[in-house]
Parts: sequence; structure tokens; C-alpha cells
Amino acid sequence: MSSYLGVSGIVKRKIERADPQVVARLSRLGVASIHEAMGRKGLMKPFMRPIYAGAYACGTAVTVFMHPGDNWMLHVAAEQIQPGDVVVATCSADCLDGFFGDLLATSFRARGARGLVIEGGVRDIRDLTQMQFPVFSKAISAKGTIKATVGSVNIPVICAGTLVNAGDVIIGDDDGVVVVPAGEALATAEAAEKRVANETQKREKLAAGTLGLDLYQMREPLAKAGLKYVD
Amino acid sequence: MSSYLGVSGIVKRKIERADPQVVARLSRLGVASIHEAMGRKGLMKPFMRPIYAGAYACGTAVTVFMHPGDNWMLHVAAEQIQPGDVVVATCSADCLDGFFGDLLATSFRARGARGLVIEGGVRDIRDLTQMQFPVFSKAISAKGTIKATVGSVNIPVICAGTLVNAGDVIIGDDDGVVVVPAGEALATAEAAEKRVANETQKREKLAAGTLGLDLYQMREPLAKAGLKYVD
Amino acid sequence: MSSYLGVSGIVKRKIERADPQVVARLSRLGVASIHEAMGRKGLMKPFMRPIYAGAYACGTAVTVFMHPGDNWMLHVAAEQIQPGDVVVATCSADCLDGFFGDLLATSFRARGARGLVIEGGVRDIRDLTQMQFPVFSKAISAKGTIKATVGSVNIPVICAGTLVNAGDVIIGDDDGVVVVPAGEALATAEAAEKRVANETQKREKLAAGTLGLDLYQMREPLAKAGLKYVD
Amino acid sequence: MSSYLGVSGIVKRKIERADPQVVARLSRLGVASIHEAMGRKGLMKPFMRPIYAGAYACGTAVTVFMHPGDNWMLHVAAEQIQPGDVVVATCSADCLDGFFGDLLATSFRARGARGLVIEGGVRDIRDLTQMQFPVFSKAISAKGTIKATVGSVNIPVICAGTLVNAGDVIIGDDDGVVVVPAGEALATAEAAEKRVANETQKREKLAAGTLGLDLYQMREPLAKAGLKYVD
Amino acid sequence: MSSYLGVSGIVKRKIERADPQVVARLSRLGVASIHEAMGRKGLMKPFMRPIYAGAYACGTAVTVFMHPGDNWMLHVAAEQIQPGDVVVATCSADCLDGFFGDLLATSFRARGARGLVIEGGVRDIRDLTQMQFPVFSKAISAKGTIKATVGSVNIPVICAGTLVNAGDVIIGDDDGVVVVPAGEALATAEAAEKRVANETQKREKLAAGTLGLDLYQMREPLAKAGLKYVD
Amino acid sequence: MSSYLGVSGIVKRKIERADPQVVARLSRLGVASIHEAMGRKGLMKPFMRPIYAGAYACGTAVTVFMHPGDNWMLHVAAEQIQPGDVVVATCSADCLDGFFGDLLATSFRARGARGLVIEGGVRDIRDLTQMQFPVFSKAISAKGTIKATVGSVNIPVICAGTLVNAGDVIIGDDDGVVVVPAGEALATAEAAEKRVANETQKREKLAAGTLGLDLYQMREPLAKAGLKYVD
Repeated sequence: MSSYLGVSGIVKRKIERADPQVVARLSRLGVASIHEAMGRKGLMKPFMRPIYAGAYACGTAVTVFMHPGDNWMLHVAAEQIQPGDVVVATCSADCLDGFFGDLLATSFRARGARGLVIEGGVRDIRDLTQMQFPVFSKAISAKGTIKATVGSVNIPVICAGTLVNAGDVIIGDDDGVVVVPAGEALATAEAAEKRVANETQKREKLAAGTLGLDLYQMREPLAKAGLKYVD
Repeated sequence: MSSYLGVSGIVKRKIERADPQVVARLSRLGVASIHEAMGRKGLMKPFMRPIYAGAYACGTAVTVFMHPGDNWMLHVAAEQIQPGDVVVATCSADCLDGFFGDLLATSFRARGARGLVIEGGVRDIRDLTQMQFPVFSKAISAKGTIKATVGSVNIPVICAGTLVNAGDVIIGDDDGVVVVPAGEALATAEAAEKRVANETQKREKLAAGTLGLDLYQMREPLAKAGLKYVD
Repeated sequence: MSSYLGVSGIVKRKIERADPQVVARLSRLGVASIHEAMGRKGLMKPFMRPIYAGAYACGTAVTVFMHPGDNWMLHVAAEQIQPGDVVVATCSADCLDGFFGDLLATSFRARGARGLVIEGGVRDIRDLTQMQFPVFSKAISAKGTIKATVGSVNIPVICAGTLVNAGDVIIGDDDGVVVVPAGEALATAEAAEKRVANETQKREKLAAGTLGLDLYQMREPLAKAGLKYVD
Repeated sequence: MSSYLGVSGIVKRKIERADPQVVARLSRLGVASIHEAMGRKGLMKPFMRPIYAGAYACGTAVTVFMHPGDNWMLHVAAEQIQPGDVVVATCSADCLDGFFGDLLATSFRARGARGLVIEGGVRDIRDLTQMQFPVFSKAISAKGTIKATVGSVNIPVICAGTLVNAGDVIIGDDDGVVVVPAGEALATAEAAEKRVANETQKREKLAAGTLGLDLYQMREPLAKAGLKYVD
Repeated sequence: MSSYLGVSGIVKRKIERADPQVVARLSRLGVASIHEAMGRKGLMKPFMRPIYAGAYACGTAVTVFMHPGDNWMLHVAAEQIQPGDVVVATCSADCLDGFFGDLLATSFRARGARGLVIEGGVRDIRDLTQMQFPVFSKAISAKGTIKATVGSVNIPVICAGTLVNAGDVIIGDDDGVVVVPAGEALATAEAAEKRVANETQKREKLAAGTLGLDLYQMREPLAKAGLKYVD
Repeated sequence: MSSYLGVSGIVKRKIERADPQVVARLSRLGVASIHEAMGRKGLMKPFMRPIYAGAYACGTAVTVFMHPGDNWMLHVAAEQIQPGDVVVATCSADCLDGFFGDLLATSFRARGARGLVIEGGVRDIRDLTQMQFPVFSKAISAKGTIKATVGSVNIPVICAGTLVNAGDVIIGDDDGVVVVPAGEALATAEAAEKRVANETQKREKLAAGTLGLDLYQMREPLAKAGLKYVD
């Protein structure tokens, strides 16, 4: 399906979403842990930021491909949203316009959407914050958009440097946004859960004053790598 | 008066401010709605951000033209402030220094200022936040400035990509900053009020599950534009 | 000692920290005041921002020199931390990876660290905020790092455009981060205290409506500099 | 006419162009000299760069206001071009798409245009360079644009931080782009010519080893300003 | 194969390269024309620039996935190069280090490489220019890299916002870099050739003074869209 | 002397310059080689670029500390230039103004200067290119500056992320700018010369088709690091 990448004029209605039970497991984990558990991949670029502190979203991707200054496809995407989805929108060229605001958020929420990830701008920040509708975006801008050019929905998109296929799991928190391919969701959840459990023990030891140098047995490799202590 | 643009050494004392009653009407509306009501113009660039979440300012512009690293003209501007004004400051070249802090804010407030919009940096963020003195700026910087070169006050300025004449209405909220020329303030307030009223109805329908595709009758134009649904 | 600048493979164990009593005096002052009191120097670039509003740190520098994508030296630095220290980390090349998270913060706090200043990225923002562990960074990123290349600890480093020697006083607040060389700490504290006392009087006069033009006797120099008032 | 700023849907056919003889005089001077002669104003932001080294343009402005990703108005503008014009194009929001290429350049040249200044992107760089068609732009991008939304032609525009009225003189060289309002063109040409003549003498003295300190009699003001020489 | 995206530790030796005869046809066309012929997709972000004016490369992709500050995989990739390939390198996080210089260029050329596209930095610019080895990069930096962490070769990569599979056709010129999926190469070549032929006729008419308004029959749609001519 | 860092009002007349014979040896080597020979340190940030392709400078540093929008200290610095010096100028805050143009270049050359490195902007690019006066800068801008505030000359400065002491060796070429502390100049020249000699042999082998994998014996460490070859 990657041959649709960047193609305009397509709405794919049937997509395979990741298993909701696995999504639920991933929703208990943070972006950093999931990214590590996948072998340090899947992260969007760090310019993607939550519009309010503490914003959190986890769900299956409905993807949107738009053109600069034109948010028509977000309206088309609304119809494809199923409860538990996170909309992931990107643009054929860099554009910081305010593609999304409180009306679309109202509509998305009515359809069951859990949030929006957009490589572009959004507006109505006060309303979105009051609604606690989580959005992760590249910018905030009051600039309005038009509805003139068709893009696509549920084709593969590149968003903030990462490939997203419809149905992939999207997790966003204060640290950024990570994409877990649907086929890797279960293995990732398992690996991340182990990692988190493991970290709890480490945290206790570090809190008690144990040094990472000893906990992770770094002293010998550091010496081999040439580190010298001087007074 | 646009011939003064970029000229140093002028303080214009008599300016025509927008009608306070119209300013009051605009103050009940958001930046995005006002920008739309004006035909999608008047917005400053999206790098202009409030220094604290929820900052809001609406008033008539006292304009300031400064030079890099020099905030002398902000002191000159203080005397020209009348209750209900918002100071709009810009610089002859990009400079992120902290041109403004809590002492100037104290002085501005004593004169009746409702806020500051500055294409530059500000400091004393904790104090300004405690004072709830709204500032929209390009940067935050503790860097101090000097008082050595004269600029101008109440001449037309370009601030963050937008022309501002003294007396224009300036509205800033979490979405950014918009400039309404004094002569367009009444028409803009009326158009924006209609727009907001209209949005309330739309919001209810969207919240009830009606799709924008149907509410805005987009299905036919989308098909004409070539959008295809596939499974 | 500046000959170590940029050298890898060194951990300096004995450093001369600024006098704790002077550090305590500086901790009652803000970054902007201290920067002014030093003659407007010592500030890091304004892209260094606190990870949560109100973050504050003041302490003596333990410096860390790292390489892109590699946080090994932060573990090495933990052992060198003494109560009252602030870790200052920089990288041999621009890199926004998440070098630091809640485990390292737990370890740093157990050693008595008062905060972190890093020209790079950090992650686990929610945890760090809950811990109220103050961090001033260039970016937030969930991107993990490796432990493969040695850098140095407690050598002089350039962080965000400023030279930092181990033992210098580091103060970070909402306005940014300032570095006070250990040898200038006492004089700076005294000058800043005077400045702050002086500002209190000024603030009262400005709040009462006195103009800065009169308070600072600017009218004559402005006229000499060619400022003209027109109607 | 500034009330048209940012308005879409207008083509103004009759504009008052600066006197061609004055334009000819300005064309013998550089951007830096003209900017100085106007009192250090009128410069576009330094991100506006020539697409090839040595590009030079001087002429009267035909202004274009476009929307992101849409170059329709450049075609509309072509008809308004008269020999000796320079087209100045800007966009309602930041957009780096390639709005202009060799076909439009061919058309513009056939109409007598002397160049293009655009706060956006351009493409066909090799062809434009071979044609020696001078372009000053914010970016180079092969990204194509559409023709769907009307903007305006010959209304006032803000381009790269500067107000441009149709008919103003636009000069672009390796140092950047400057705008001379039509009404200030003669005075500016005269002042700039004097400045250049004056610089020739200075250059000779400096080349012979005279120091600026002596040529500009700076030693006394430097001492007054507190400069101290140490060994 | 997209499941390998972002995975480290893999070198895929057998890849399907686009047909050399089709590559040859594409090599006679420019980046802008090819991008248009594909339906305006496939372009890398405009920050990818040639290191010297006139640089041109066209060939089949050997992809490289590296880590910040580490160019080990470029050496691994050299062995996978076949005559006619263009190496496309990207990094797990933004990094502007100089990953590539004249020694690697010598090795790549000896293997038959036609150029390099890298979302990162390169060095030895003078030598690469003398060799006329075309490189398209995000930055120029003398900063050296290490060889410590494995990445991958010939897995799918995201480079400058575009998905690249090994064997895809890569074309870079002064306008930027475009990626043509191997399976779309023939259709793209045909469409682009038609487009270029078509443009030749248009160019002649435009050069003779015909307006685009008439050539493209824009007057009626412009009027319908509301464009008004005023004097 | 590092206590002068960031202090205004000082001109240090007597500085210890690196040995001219060592400077001559370094002048035969490139920036990348010298940076590597010093252990990968001393590089300025990669935003420092030559104003024309092929610009090259090598000499001993005369340092200048300026304030935003003010180039007074460049005139003061001219008197301190001795034949063979390269002026290194920086500013107390980020500023892209055109601090330097052809008149100052004429004066600097008359004093024997070999070039300028400036974390700021310069103008008169056409003249400087014709003069072949090498400049490495952060920006090009026609914006003029004033002469109102004293900075310092020959104090230590931070330029583009690197500490520069007066008398250090500065080398700039197409790859960027590197700083060699005077006391490390001889050792660096020797190490860099060896490195260059060594590279000549490597280049011949690589040109003959030997792979870096074999030349540098990388196959075993790659396998140990987990690299796997698949078909």
C-alpha cells in the first residue's frame, strides 16, 4: 500500500486497526519507554509538542494527507473515525496554518477520536484545553484555511519524519509522539512492560544512592575506553 | 502617515484611537474569529506567543520603533499610553534581547496599559505572570538592553509581518495576535459576532454527531474535485 | 585549565566550588538581576528554557562534555556530584536527543544535585515535573541515547554560548540561565542585592505614576539625541 | 490605499510608478548605500537571498499577494507588468513552495520585467541562472503549486518584514533587497550618490593606512565612553 | 519490507534496482518536472541543497540508516554500491556532523556511485567540488564522526521527509531531490517527457508575449472566483 | 585572562601570537584535518559560512566583543591588527546586522589582516568578493550599524560556540572555521601533517577499489557489534 504515499484523491474506508487490547496495554506506558522497547525507532521529530502540559493520547491512526493552507481532508477524515482512533495529519509541504480548531475537535470527539497529531498548526487553544482534547502539533496559529484541494485519507503518510500507516498505534505524551506499526504492537507492549518493570527496581536502587556506574557495571568499559580520573 | 515607516526620532502625541465601545465588543471575541471575520488577514506571524497560558489583551495600539539591544523608546512610549492601550513594539532588526521587564510593566500598568506585543524578547516572566500583565513576544531572554539610540513612538510599524498604525485595535490570546485597523473595527466586530453566533449552532450539530461533510454540503464538491472512496 | 576545553577522556575529581554562603545569597536573586549586576554578561542563549513553568535552580557547576547521541558521561558525572551542585552538560555537536530522564534525575537527586542545565534534549517530562527536578534544556525529546564514547567531566565547557568552569555558580529561572564565575560570586551577589533594593524604590514610584522619563532624567538626553514630539 | 493590505480579490491596474530617471540613478547604487541614505530603513529581512551570485535587479514594484501553495496571482500579475518593473510577491502565510519557474520567467521577461522578489520559494534555478533572470527569494524548492484561490495584485503588501506599495523602487543585490517609496526616490538617490562619493575618498585614505579611529575622530568619544587600553 | 524501517543491524545485499534504461530517461529530465509528473509527490524537504552550484545526480538508491555522530554504515554501504547507484543516507536523529568527505567519495566513485544524498552534514567541500562528486545535504560541517554503532543498509529509510526504498530512482539537481519508486519509474519518465515537450511549446508562446491568462484560459475561472479589476 | 570574558571597555594591546612559522604550516592544511588532529575539537558551529566559495583564511586572532547593532569596536580593533592576523568578532547577543563592509575591509587589509570571522552579518559582498577578502559569517545583511557602545578588543570571546583567545590560530575554509589555541599550534600542525600524509595512501587504495571495510579492518568489529547480512 506504500505506493499510495503522497497520492491525492483517495479515501480508504477499510483499514486494519491494531488490536484494541494491545492498544490498551500500550496506553499504560510512556512514549520514551515504547520507543526504547521498539529498538529506539518510531519517534516523530521533537518539534511535535502537546498544546497543553499533560496532554496524552493513545489510539489507532486514521491518516490524513493535506495540502498547504487547506484543511478539507480533515472533514473527510471525520467520517472515517471510529472510537479509539487518533487522527494523524500531514501536509504536502511545510505549512503552519491553523488547520484544526474547536469545531473540528467537537466533531472528532463525537466520532470517538482520542486526539490529533498534526505536522502543521492548530488554533482555539483555549477551547481545546478546556475540552481536554489532546493535540500534538508543530505550531499554534490562528490562521484560517480553505477547502479547495483534495488530498487523501488512510493512505500511508510521512508525519514529522516517521512513516504512519492507517491502523498503527499512535502514542503522544509530554515527551513527544511515537508510532507503533500495528504488526509490532503486541511485541512492543510486552517489551515495554518488561522495561518499565525493570526500571522500577533500578529507580529504587538509584534513589538509595547506588551509582549507575555500579548498577550498570560501567567502570571497566569506561577504563577500557580510555577514561582517566585526575585531581 | 505611512511615510514615517522606519523613521527614527519622532513621537506622535495625538493619535486617533478606535472607538472604545467597539474595542469592548472585540474584546469578547477570539483572535481566530476576528481574523476570519476580516477576511483572513491582520494576523501576526505564529512565532508571537503569550508568555503565560491564558494571557489575553485587547486595546488600542501605541506603537514603538526601537533599535537592536536598546529599549529607550519603551520609556518614551509610557508617557503616550492612555487607559485601554496595548503597546506594540518592534525593532529595526531581529533582536531577542529582554527589552521589557517588571519595572516597565509596573509603569505601563500605572498608565492604564492592557498589555504588550513585542517582536523581541522580554524578561521577569515570573513577576509578569504574578502581575497577570499580558505579553505576547517572540522570545524570553534575561539579556538587558541599553538606552542610547532614539527610535520613534506612534509611527506606523511592521510587527511580526503585519502593519500596525497607532490607534488600531490589537487583540492577543493563546492563538496569537491580530491587528484590526481602527477604520475596520466596527465592521469587523459585527462580522465576528455573527460568525461566533453561527458557530454555536454548528458546534451543537457536530457534537450530536452530524458530519461536517453533511453540515457544510461537501460531498458533491469533493466528488467533483475527484475524491474517490476505496476499500 | 582552559586547555582541557573540548578534550575527551578526563574526569577531574577535585574542583573548587564557589562559597556555599555566597551561593545562598545568589539563590535569593533572579537571573536578570544577576546578569545585570555582572555587567550584562554570563547569560546562556535564550533557547535554553525550563521544562516546566517556575523551575528554579541555583548551585555550583559539575560540568559534563558529551558526544551526540551518547549520555555515558552523565552517569560518570553522578559520582562527582556533591550536595548543592547543578550539572551543566554540553555536547561536541548540536544534538537534541533525550540525554536525561527520570532515572538519572533520581540518581542525581540522591547525590544532592539541585538541577540540570543541558544544551541538548531531555525526556520523562511528566516525571521530572512531578519530582520538581528543575531542568533547563534546548529541547524535549523521547529519543534514547547510547553509552559508547567517553567525554569528560569537570573540564571547562561551552554551554549555550557561555563558558562554564566546574565550581562556577549556575542560576536558572523562567528568564533563562546565567553563569557566575566562582571568583566573581561574592562581588556579583553584593551588586545584585543593591540593584534589587534599588529597584524596589523605583517600582513604587513607577506604580504611583511617575514616568521613567522623569525618574531616570531622560528628557534632556532624548532631546539631545534628536527626539522630536509632533502632533 | 493601505486599507487593501491583506485583502484578496483585487487587481489594481493603474499605479503610480517612481520616475524612471530616478530609478536609473538608483540602479547605479548598491542596496547598502541606499538603505543608509534613507536613514537605515526599507530593508527586507536577511533571509531574502539571490538565487545566483551577482544577481541584481532595480525597478518599480508590481506587488502580488498570494496564498500558500497557490501561484495563480503571478499569472494575473504578468499582465500588469510594464517594462522596468520588478515583481514583489508575498503570501498570506509562510510557505516555501516553488511558486515561480522558467515559464513564468519567460513570460515576465517578455513583458519587460527586470526581476522577482518573493517571500517564498522558486524553482528551475539552472534555467533562471542561464537566463540571468534575477530572483531574490526565501527558499529554493521544486514543489509545484496550484491555481485555486485568488489573491490580489498591486495592493500594498508586507514582504520580508517591509511594506511595499506598487510603484515603489525595489533594488536587490548580493547584500539583500531594499524598498524605496516612490515619493522618497529622488531624495534617496541624491543622498546615496553623495554617500558613495564620500566613501571613495574614505576608501583611499583607509587603503593608505589611515585608521578609522583618526579618520572619523573616534578617540575622544571612545575615551568618554570609558574605553581603556591595557597591556 | 517496510517493517525494517528504523531497525539497526541489517545489511540487505540483494535489492531490485529500477531499470537502467528508465533511469537513463529520467536523467534527461529535471527534478521539478519529475515531481510534477508524479502528481506533485516524492520531493525531499527544501533544506536539502547541492554542495556546489550545478551539482546533478541520477541513479538507483542504496540506502543507509546511521546514528548521530557515527558514519560507520557509510563504509558498510560502499561494498553494496553498484555502478549507477546514488547513496541515500539518513540518521536516527537530527545531526549535522560531517559524515562524509573526500576519502569516502573516492571509495564510492571507485565503486561506481553517482552521488550522495544525506540528511546530515558533509565536509571536504573543496575536494568534492574538484572531483565533481555531487552531494545533496542538509549542512556542511568539518565535524568528524566515529565508528561505534551499527545501523543498516538497504532498508527503507525516511530521508528529508520522504520514504526511500533501496532501488528507487533518486534525482538531485539545483532545485532539490526527488524520489521515484522503482515501480513508478517508467510511467513517471513517460509523463515527465510529455510534460517537458509540452512546456517547450508554452515557452515559445510566452516568450512571444502571449499571457498565461490567455494561454491557460484563466480569465473566466478568475472572474468566477471573484477577482475584480479596479483603477 | 578568562575573567575578562564578556567584559566591556577593555583593549588589550599586547597579546602573544602563535609562532608565524607554525601558522604557515597550519595554512597548508584544511579545517577538517586540523580539527581531527586536535582530537575533534575547536570547531565553530556549522552556521559559520564563507561569503564566497573558496574563501580561505589562516592567521592569528585579534578578538572583538561587540554589542547588537553596534560595530564601533571593529574600528578600534583595526589599530590592533598586525600583518598575519585574522579578526574574530562576536556580539553580546545574537544579531545579524551588517557589521562589516568594504571600507572596513580596506582598512583591515591595509593593516595586514588576512580575513574576518564574525558571529553576525556582513555586507558589500560583491566588493569583498572582488577584493578576495575572506569572511566567514553567520549571515549576509545590508543593515547598517551604529557606533555608540564600547565593547572590548583582545579579550577572550565565545564565537559560534568556541572559545577564542587573542593570538590563537584561526583557520577558515569551505568546511567551516577551527580555532587552534596558540599553545597547541605546533603539536596540532605536526599531527595534522601526519594525518594528511596518511590519507594520501588511503586515498590511492580506495581509488583502486579497496574497500574501507578491509582497509580499516572493520569486518570483525561490525560482526561483533551485531551487523547481519541478509538477501
